[in-house]
Amino acid sequence: MTARDVPSGDPARIATPRPGDPALARLSLNQRTTARWSLPQAVAGCVERGIGAIGLWREPVAEVGTAAAARLVADAGLRVSSLCRGGFFTGPDPAAAHRDNLDALDEAAALGCEVLVLVPGGLPAGDRDLPGARARVAEAVAALAGPARERGVRLGIEPMHPIYTADRGVVATLGQALDLAEQHPANVVGVVVDTFHVWWDPDVAERIARAGERIVSYQISDWITPLPPDALLSRGMVGDGHIDFAALTRAVRDTGYRGDVEVEIFNADVWAADGAAVLATIARRYAEFVAPHLGADR
Amino acid sequence: MTARDVPSGDPARIATPRPGDPALARLSLNQRTTARWSLPQAVAGCVERGIGAIGLWREPVAEVGTAAAARLVADAGLRVSSLCRGGFFTGPDPAAAHRDNLDALDEAAALGCEVLVLVPGGLPAGDRDLPGARARVAEAVAALAGPARERGVRLGIEPMHPIYTADRGVVATLGQALDLAEQHPANVVGVVVDTFHVWWDPDVAERIARAGERIVSYQISDWITPLPPDALLSRGMVGDGHIDFAALTRAVRDTGYRGDVEVEIFNADVWAADGAAVLATIARRYAEFVAPHLGADR
Repeated sequence: MTARDVPSGDPARIATPRPGDPALARLSLNQRTTARWSLPQAVAGCVERGIGAIGLWREPVAEVGTAAAARLVADAGLRVSSLCRGGFFTGPDPAAAHRDNLDALDEAAALGCEVLVLVPGGLPAGDRDLPGARARVAEAVAALAGPARERGVRLGIEPMHPIYTADRGVVATLGQALDLAEQHPANVVGVVVDTFHVWWDPDVAERIARAGERIVSYQISDWITPLPPDALLSRGMVGDGHIDFAALTRAVRDTGYRGDVEVEIFNADVWAADGAAVLATIARRYAEFVAPHLGADR
Repeated sequence: MTARDVPSGDPARIATPRPGDPALARLSLNQRTTARWSLPQAVAGCVERGIGAIGLWREPVAEVGTAAAARLVADAGLRVSSLCRGGFFTGPDPAAAHRDNLDALDEAAALGCEVLVLVPGGLPAGDRDLPGARARVAEAVAALAGPARERGVRLGIEPMHPIYTADRGVVATLGQALDLAEQHPANVVGVVVDTFHVWWDPDVAERIARAGERIVSYQISDWITPLPPDALLSRGMVGDGHIDFAALTRAVRDTGYRGDVEVEIFNADVWAADGAAVLATIARRYAEFVAPHLGADR
């Protein structure tokens, strides 16, 4: 896999950075990018490729158990850049959602992870009351702020591309996420900046600047055309699409963000490809499109 | 088709309004909703169903010729609520796009149509410069304002759902469309409010109020889940999805808008259904979800 990238087929423009290359310093693999890998496989893949951080998901963590997962990651020397995911606040049983989010906070703390990503949730079936659903998100975040502070975990509200407003995330812009987050201390409630979700926003630069120290996670994937048929699997490999990673990365850098950069790609072709080859492509694309614009290392 | 709707299969909640029913007074059929119909078929369908207006598309108009199309529509007693579409300003040949838009303005004037809908255009292949493309749209609209005024046709900038930012419309919000329109007189450059494109926007109510007299067209279709696989054919029948037509229609009404309401649905199932049955469903859904919130007739 030296001459061509997976899965885009584009010729590689630069050599794949080797483990230890400073260009990989802040790269993190979000587990969903290699969805077929178990947690031990993902950890081993990161170590082999020289990726120093991992964004964990609750389901594969649960497969091995939280304590075992924490040991596995720590023994491998990996940072945990975030835990995905809490949230889903808009459904018919807010109390159950709250309890599940408390569990997620406990898991994040046990994993040594400082950030719980919150996917707000969509509209229940047949529901047309978008302002109502948004109000429920605000209430649920408020209820979770105290428990998060107690556990030393920051909540990251993830604004989602409007393609997901109906079924996944009623918080549709970074500005709206900040309106919610700013009701709480910055060290308790922040926002997630995911290039796929925010790139189209005419006000994205101003909103990233406004986010400032509230950016708890910077996630990257591309917007490709034609859009893949399954909206939930429509993200592209970094560099395959229309997103200006240089501009967005500089905007995030200029807030003072010094955290990891998670590659999170939901895409059937990426999932079908060989995991190690995907990681090689990620490392190369990250070094080409993102790392040069990140500024000082963490 | 009295007991069930096409194409949703939902039971009808109200009787299909008969021709002459005041509930249909401002309903317009956008031609793309019955994409398999020729212009003569669409005109006949409107007359039979008692739909008093039609939103024309340039391609089917060209099939019969502009003058013949104008006679056909006038003889049927139909209003022409809009002509779709000009725009596509962001490509490699702005001069050619300008000439084509002049032709579209001429066609609108000849058809007795006061509104030319502008679809801004997306990013050229391989292009990541979204601000640059947006600047090209602003320049192109400015160049078209004079010719539009001369012909007595209003330009309607259509903000498009962010699902189309990359490949169809770099103007992603109603606020952004208004920023462009407000550089020109309100009787020359306005905006199109299409429920599918704007419903997700946390600021949509304020932006519709800001639009005021600049709303040159109000178009309706629904956001359905799961989203159909072809992004360009992802619109749903009014009432089948998550859009709150009551709230959006009242907001448009409160600006003083007294124009027609175009049903514009790009959807493979709708296109495959019998045209007359689709029009019956449209009439019923419009009477149920939209007409009660429109206020005074035109």
